[in-house]
Amino acid sequence: MIDEKLKKELIEKGRRFMHGYHYDDMTADSEYNPSDQQLRLPQPPLCKAAMAEDSAKTVLPLDFSALELNNDIISVIRDRRSSRVYTEEEMSIEELSFLLWATQGIKSIRGKSYATIRTVPCGGARHEFETYMIIRKVSGLVPGIYHYLPMEHAIELLKTGENLEETINETLCGQKWAEKANVVFYWTMVAYRAEWRYGTNCHRVALLDAGHLCQNLYIAVTALGLGTCGIGAFVHDECNKVFGIDGNEEYMVYTAPVGTVRPEDKTAEAAFYKFVEEEGL
Amino acid sequence: MIDEKLKKELIEKGRRFMHGYHYDDMTADSEYNPSDQQLRLPQPPLCKAAMAEDSAKTVLPLDFSALELNNDIISVIRDRRSSRVYTEEEMSIEELSFLLWATQGIKSIRGKSYATIRTVPCGGARHEFETYMIIRKVSGLVPGIYHYLPMEHAIELLKTGENLEETINETLCGQKWAEKANVVFYWTMVAYRAEWRYGTNCHRVALLDAGHLCQNLYIAVTALGLGTCGIGAFVHDECNKVFGIDGNEEYMVYTAPVGTVRPEDKTAEAAFYKFVEEEGL
Repeated sequence: MIDEKLKKELIEKGRRFMHGYHYDDMTADSEYNPSDQQLRLPQPPLCKAAMAEDSAKTVLPLDFSALELNNDIISVIRDRRSSRVYTEEEMSIEELSFLLWATQGIKSIRGKSYATIRTVPCGGARHEFETYMIIRKVSGLVPGIYHYLPMEHAIELLKTGENLEETINETLCGQKWAEKANVVFYWTMVAYRAEWRYGTNCHRVALLDAGHLCQNLYIAVTALGLGTCGIGAFVHDECNKVFGIDGNEEYMVYTAPVGTVRPEDKTAEAAFYKFVEEEGL
Repeated sequence: MIDEKLKKELIEKGRRFMHGYHYDDMTADSEYNPSDQQLRLPQPPLCKAAMAEDSAKTVLPLDFSALELNNDIISVIRDRRSSRVYTEEEMSIEELSFLLWATQGIKSIRGKSYATIRTVPCGGARHEFETYMIIRKVSGLVPGIYHYLPMEHAIELLKTGENLEETINETLCGQKWAEKANVVFYWTMVAYRAEWRYGTNCHRVALLDAGHLCQNLYIAVTALGLGTCGIGAFVHDECNKVFGIDGNEEYMVYTAPVGTVRPEDKTAEAAFYKFVEEEGL
């Protein structure tokens, strides 16, 4: 069953990737392989264009003053946890808006149209990510598949939802608990946006950058008293179908369900770790 | 000069890595290649042991009540920025302690010694990272090379500092601005801690997880009114020498200088982007 040689090889490959290609192979360095930006090739768009008609668009509120936020930064950092037990109460559109703003919101544009400056940092301010959502339970929104338009801080409905729970399940490798989320965030990478500037060395950094935005989701979710748990295990082919992406120029990088939670469910949360006790670890 | 074929190949490799190895090659899947945890091999230690003698250790305060924190979560998220102009005023040991706690602090232990639960999320709670620091200007601390001991929330002095600015410069690819940081954080990965549980598929997720912890640094730094800017470009061989790591079982993943800042330096900050205006971008 175990192919020790293959396993060793893949682990070595993984470690090398984390080092950056330039570490082992200087011919991959920008001196030999300038990036398209260095070659003065035209820059790709800062964001993906709208995918649906104007009528499918909902502009989100940027006034967060009505939100009940935990404004104690120490307790927000301390109380951040992974939550997988959701109570399926309604979430407000202001809460969704806050989460989108905290993870990918645009604060300003650098130059004429050189870069978006966002609430999260990203290598070279490339912000190569797109946000898709499966929305199940947000007040005032039709359940369905959505796409975020950060320039307008709007979302567009790509498809109204039937069997959204099944879609969540199929895209997230059968992690059943995620089906009860109010909204699941799916972040893709439009690869050339980063490759244009950093060429062959951008993919490692892109993963660090995707981590930044998901941590801001954790922070914002905690401040709102909601729950989340980042999921790195998803089915590319299913995600590609659901969101209409090609899986090569644009592909899934990270996902996170968000749901309503209550403190009483601590025992149910602990059940996800019962193997630790059972195995005496 | 340009090897188009190599460039294309490396970009293809980078994109595939981001997909996870299992996407293309099912023989890499855990069904064929169970992880060492699945094989019931012994678990590696949760943290690296102390590297210096007890006398080199400083236990850090966990009482953050004296810190002047911005406790408006919206403004902390909004005001987060990349800061590269540092004023070299003194930073307090309480501030350093808060940054270490926010990025890697341990809240509890799961099971007997199965996992550390920290202020940041990490796949399978493996927390495969170690924190090293070059400390230049923190009140009460000898300038030098330090290592964080998260179990005790202590730091240990590995080497007192001479020419720390030069060391910062050499490890961070000559990014001169970083020399004025009060402290530079260097995060390594002890690879087997993650590989033990996730085998050949852990390296992609580890980068997401390193992004989580650096975003918490941004959040904590912003709340303190300090400045930081994550740096993904560093020189592995220099880092290995400075911190005494082997570069294979443990290697550098991400770095971030932190310094004191003042609002008047906005123009100096903008100078880092003057190419945008100059090139009419």
